[in-house]
Amino acid sequence: MNKKRIIAGVDIGGTNTVIGFIGEDGDYLFGSSILTSPDEEANKFIVRLTNEINLVFKEYGENYHLGGIGIAAPSANQFQGTIESPSNLKWGNVNFINMMKEYFDVPISIVNDANAAAIGEYEYGLAKGMKNFIVITLGTGLGSGIVVDGNLLYGENGLAGELGHTIIEQDGRMCNCGRTGCLETYVSVTGIRRTIFDLLTRYNYPSELRDISFNQLTGEMVTEHAKKGDPIALKAFDFTGEVLGKAIANLVACFTSEAIILFGGLVESGDLLIEPTKFYFEKNLLGIHKGKVKILKSKFENGMAAILGASSLITKEIDKKVSFKLNHLSAVEKQ
Amino acid sequence: MNKKRIIAGVDIGGTNTVIGFIGEDGDYLFGSSILTSPDEEANKFIVRLTNEINLVFKEYGENYHLGGIGIAAPSANQFQGTIESPSNLKWGNVNFINMMKEYFDVPISIVNDANAAAIGEYEYGLAKGMKNFIVITLGTGLGSGIVVDGNLLYGENGLAGELGHTIIEQDGRMCNCGRTGCLETYVSVTGIRRTIFDLLTRYNYPSELRDISFNQLTGEMVTEHAKKGDPIALKAFDFTGEVLGKAIANLVACFTSEAIILFGGLVESGDLLIEPTKFYFEKNLLGIHKGKVKILKSKFENGMAAILGASSLITKEIDKKVSFKLNHLSAVEKQ
Repeated sequence: MNKKRIIAGVDIGGTNTVIGFIGEDGDYLFGSSILTSPDEEANKFIVRLTNEINLVFKEYGENYHLGGIGIAAPSANQFQGTIESPSNLKWGNVNFINMMKEYFDVPISIVNDANAAAIGEYEYGLAKGMKNFIVITLGTGLGSGIVVDGNLLYGENGLAGELGHTIIEQDGRMCNCGRTGCLETYVSVTGIRRTIFDLLTRYNYPSELRDISFNQLTGEMVTEHAKKGDPIALKAFDFTGEVLGKAIANLVACFTSEAIILFGGLVESGDLLIEPTKFYFEKNLLGIHKGKVKILKSKFENGMAAILGASSLITKEIDKKVSFKLNHLSAVEKQ
Repeated sequence: MNKKRIIAGVDIGGTNTVIGFIGEDGDYLFGSSILTSPDEEANKFIVRLTNEINLVFKEYGENYHLGGIGIAAPSANQFQGTIESPSNLKWGNVNFINMMKEYFDVPISIVNDANAAAIGEYEYGLAKGMKNFIVITLGTGLGSGIVVDGNLLYGENGLAGELGHTIIEQDGRMCNCGRTGCLETYVSVTGIRRTIFDLLTRYNYPSELRDISFNQLTGEMVTEHAKKGDPIALKAFDFTGEVLGKAIANLVACFTSEAIILFGGLVESGDLLIEPTKFYFEKNLLGIHKGKVKILKSKFENGMAAILGASSLITKEIDKKVSFKLNHLSAVEKQ
């Protein structure tokens, strides 16, 4: 029997790592997820990851052959195959592709998670047909995939788009990158948790959040309490939207994108975050851009944009439709 | 006699407008300048500008024929031929090319001044051979020309690169764009003048600058007093370099450029500005980029990078080496 090809897409997040097996038409077939532990070493993480990929494939993949693995990860350098000192994982600098190749004899590629999400949105999501857009991932950290004139922005060393590490507050919150005041210490799941505790100390409003410890508090809990009208949780979303809206307004002054697509755990809160973000974005936007730039919530859930983007890249590499060093979106499109 | 072709390059600044006649090899032959008055209407300015171009050409240009005019201007939209509500000139939205064509029957093009400077640096200056760099013009305002992977960044409507209008201080200084806290209200000739008066109110240090009115004070005077050791002027350069260094560090987090080239009136102060800018830039840079990005002072003087860039664009248009809508640097290079 001629088995159909299937690609494993992996999205490594700071909290969860999601695995999705993608068919030839870009359709999600089956998948799984494992926890990411920030303190675990990369080689131990890889044992768990490869076990899970094998387990899931064995259970559901009997009618398929595994054609390749596309990995989306923070601080990934797709030209080197490395993950370079990710802020939210204590891995240091690792050649992730070489490490994975000890377990799998198939083509493997790695790509920055936000870039993968941008490719996913471009090929299958809200950015179809767009030439200037930015995908911002709001998970444990904040990542950005920037598309300019149909090309992914890689920059001089393939590490462009570190919007999460632009400093927005002098002497602000301590960041895992070793500096202070980075955008992602305010705008991310981790950021909104910090904001909650900041607000609890500033205000006397009654709030059930006073019964939850810092380590217990999740992004979902913040959403849940905001939906019940908790004044601290609502204020936290307003503040997060304000910081994000201003940051995006500055970004648009530089890039004049047609849309900003938000994606990731924090965005699951929906309008709680999107509405204040839109409000402060328009308020802080340069006059010539007002009313012209869309802020959109990705329609993909749970890492799926990044998984689809990473799997689509490896598919193109396998099919040699495009050389891996030239896989700009426009190059891909011209095939 | 077969007269050689000459191109007029014009750099419209908020204070001075510089005219340079450029020969076929990109060599500056002769030129002039007129004052730009922020309160003068565009049609009156054009009368003075065209008179000056004619006058200078008549005096020195007898061995040449005028092949075209390339104009560099703030807020210029090269695809539309318009200048769109420049912050520092009260012109509103004007079709500058059409207005100029009433006076000259030669090809005329217009391009954003910072983009023109980026092209000038790329073709004749410090950016030769670079693929990722940013030119920042520090004159009356702050402009930026951003080159990504060999292409000028135009963005969705040709108005990308408004770095001067990224907001860096909430409820900060009032900006001509109608908002507050924009980068150019701190980092520009106008910005450092405002800083001087802010510092004069904060500190009791003796300073000869206390004898000069706001309207009298020029960027050159600030430089001159700093060179004589005036503590307020020195502090003003340190502060300006700090704000600029931080802004560039954030820019590099997004773009990972290999060099930032500074250009314009404020940069004539040399190390007074460049040294603190470098210091605060490195201090605020994301770890992965430290020590890898150059901050350079343009070697061109008095608008010359923008004049060379604007004249080189019109030359290419005349020679039909490249269609005007596709004049990305890489397209130009491929000829």
